[in-house]
Amino acid sequence: MPTLYHSPHTRSSRVLSQLMLMGKLDQVTVAIVDIVKSDGSGRKDPNNAHPEGKVPFLVTDDGGTIRESSAIMMYLDEIFGHPFSIKPGAAGRGSFLSWMSYYCGVLEPAMVAHFAELDHPILKSTFRTMTEVGEQIASGMGDDLFLVGDKLTIADIIMASAFQWAPHLIPEDPTVKAWIKRVEAAQDGIGLKAFETQAFAALKM
Amino acid sequence: MPTLYHSPHTRSSRVLSQLMLMGKLDQVTVAIVDIVKSDGSGRKDPNNAHPEGKVPFLVTDDGGTIRESSAIMMYLDEIFGHPFSIKPGAAGRGSFLSWMSYYCGVLEPAMVAHFAELDHPILKSTFRTMTEVGEQIASGMGDDLFLVGDKLTIADIIMASAFQWAPHLIPEDPTVKAWIKRVEAAQDGIGLKAFETQAFAALKM
Repeated sequence: MPTLYHSPHTRSSRVLSQLMLMGKLDQVTVAIVDIVKSDGSGRKDPNNAHPEGKVPFLVTDDGGTIRESSAIMMYLDEIFGHPFSIKPGAAGRGSFLSWMSYYCGVLEPAMVAHFAELDHPILKSTFRTMTEVGEQIASGMGDDLFLVGDKLTIADIIMASAFQWAPHLIPEDPTVKAWIKRVEAAQDGIGLKAFETQAFAALKM
Repeated sequence: MPTLYHSPHTRSSRVLSQLMLMGKLDQVTVAIVDIVKSDGSGRKDPNNAHPEGKVPFLVTDDGGTIRESSAIMMYLDEIFGHPFSIKPGAAGRGSFLSWMSYYCGVLEPAMVAHFAELDHPILKSTFRTMTEVGEQIASGMGDDLFLVGDKLTIADIIMASAFQWAPHLIPEDPTVKAWIKRVEAAQDGIGLKAFETQAFAALKM
């Protein structure tokens, strides 16, 4: 059984949400660990297998290790039969891969630069800013329900997670706002909250 | 036939190198376009389909669009039968996905922060620095020839491309140095240089 290293209310929460969506939470061992938060709280947990003490981190059945949310989410989706992605060879696969890379290659750095209040021409020219991210989501979706046509995928989960975590970054665009609401509604918010509350309590003990 | 938007001596050069490695350069239309370089030279080319005038950008047979090198390289590898990746379900798939995401999620931001001479705690805690990148490559490889066992994959091409582009960032580690040499030797450097020279001349006309 793969082991997911998870810390409540962090970047690994979206992986938990994915497992719940797939109904596969019982087929992955979830190891609750502490991490150093951006406000300095928490600690580098010796029980965390991630080389830099971060989450999420996944150890596969054959002992392989996976870091980065996008890779972990793609891997878990694949081993459970591609329920929330577009399979290789299927229409929309390119767009799916594009959004998965766009998350880690553009949205995440643009958001981090925003939070760090960094305004540097090299950062802007490489990653652009949250303004372009909003524009890309709106124009990329067009009239579709989700990022890749009308099928909810992990590209929606990971892309929307940024705005669920930082609602003040949600662009003033009705298409994007409606999309975030759809992605949120598709997830088991109550189930996730209950899990996180329990995980948080376990961690504090 | 897919169309690759390419500008010589840029981030899209590694996609060309991949196509040459696969022997599939004749099965992709390569559109040579200009881009705005970090030194301010070049221009936003009206012939470039990328919404922000960057490269690489891929338009697929069904009109889909793919941005980000990692996504484009995975897509091209998939449509040509996975010659330089680890297929879904095969041993090492998790590690392959991890390195592909690590490139865009860690190496690229860490390198850009380095070039921008940005030293901010949020950048460091999120992406780490080039020091950790070197350590991760060395420890991740162990005694293997390439990042995922002894098979050259596009994870090697994209990860090593950063150091081929900026050799002064190559870590002082014999394992990493030997790996970069191996990846370089596997690629058709002479063929790529010839293509790039021609593309550059075409662009200047």
